[in-house]
Amino acid sequence: MAQQARAVETRRQIVVAAANLFSRVGYERARLNDIVGESGLTRGAIYFHFQSKDDLAAIVVDEFQATSMRAVGTIAQTDTYGMRQLVMLCREMGRLLVDDPVVRAGIRLIIELHSGEAPIPVYLAWIEAIKYFVTKAVEDGDVPPDTDAEEAAVFVTESFVGAHVLSYAVSGHDDLPARIDRLADYLVTALMPDERIAARSDLLGARWTPQTEPGA
Amino acid sequence: MAQQARAVETRRQIVVAAANLFSRVGYERARLNDIVGESGLTRGAIYFHFQSKDDLAAIVVDEFQATSMRAVGTIAQTDTYGMRQLVMLCREMGRLLVDDPVVRAGIRLIIELHSGEAPIPVYLAWIEAIKYFVTKAVEDGDVPPDTDAEEAAVFVTESFVGAHVLSYAVSGHDDLPARIDRLADYLVTALMPDERIAARSDLLGARWTPQTEPGA
Repeated sequence: MAQQARAVETRRQIVVAAANLFSRVGYERARLNDIVGESGLTRGAIYFHFQSKDDLAAIVVDEFQATSMRAVGTIAQTDTYGMRQLVMLCREMGRLLVDDPVVRAGIRLIIELHSGEAPIPVYLAWIEAIKYFVTKAVEDGDVPPDTDAEEAAVFVTESFVGAHVLSYAVSGHDDLPARIDRLADYLVTALMPDERIAARSDLLGARWTPQTEPGA
Repeated sequence: MAQQARAVETRRQIVVAAANLFSRVGYERARLNDIVGESGLTRGAIYFHFQSKDDLAAIVVDEFQATSMRAVGTIAQTDTYGMRQLVMLCREMGRLLVDDPVVRAGIRLIIELHSGEAPIPVYLAWIEAIKYFVTKAVEDGDVPPDTDAEEAAVFVTESFVGAHVLSYAVSGHDDLPARIDRLADYLVTALMPDERIAARSDLLGARWTPQTEPGA
């Protein structure tokens, strides 16, 4: 059992080292040797767990998608209204990009490794999730009933992607939380009439973090 | 003179070939040999004009920035209100990304070649331009006076960057015009009160193209 726990820990160390390198230099420039250096392990230890750089990139993308879907799922289960859940999701994805190396690498890899001309699964999943929150916001009376939830969801996803691309380019993601705050305010203004915004006093600063849900 | 015209034409051919390759495979994967193949010229002809791949990338970025600033300058000089100019600029940048290989490559290269932790000049220039249009829109009475023009400009830029990143990833930019249409509508809704939008019947479809200005 101790051996298995060690193996899980080693595997985790390798994935994080690969993620750190992928997020800094991208897939093309990352070399397996540099991942070895970054991890502090031996080449043999890495090959015991993974066959190739491709393997590692696929694992990083899978774990990023799983983390991202977990955030969507947990926020969807909170007991609050749709627009607040949407604002929470924006902030939580921003937090993950800053704090979680696997998320930071995954979001870069899905664009770099994408062969083009086909939807990217994680974006489709985000769009579905946001569509769900917008549809709920229509039922809550916060968003006008003639809103096209699919179009709104694509717009929210695009704004988020642009914020993180620019934040990464100019500050290595340091300014992402500030960009997400501005983004959340504008999304609220774009989707909700002024009087509904005024009526929702707990909306603009809304944030979800694991520790706010001790009973979950 | 004929010789000089030929040199200009050859140089242009090389820049477009480099741009086509950079926009397809990115800076890292582009090899000078592939640019030679793409251009249909000889290696010697290319080295006569440019020393290296770096040289070509710098030229592509410069020309992209110049084209982009030309669009901003010309639209700023049209005789119409600020929000309409902003919508025109979004659509014109979208058109350039679809039609102009140098713009398509330039926007990819500025992110790829950016060393991080510093502003990217072309984004700062866009933000300045959009800030100018938003400030004008406040004077026009279309946008509320308490709007922070700088923050609004950053948000518009982020949304545009996200739309083009996702459009490129899933459709090689084929769906960019549709994304820009949606984006323009949402930006208008985010920035203007409903009654001002209703009063501006020529706003939502607004588009600027060189041929609409025969006198310019």
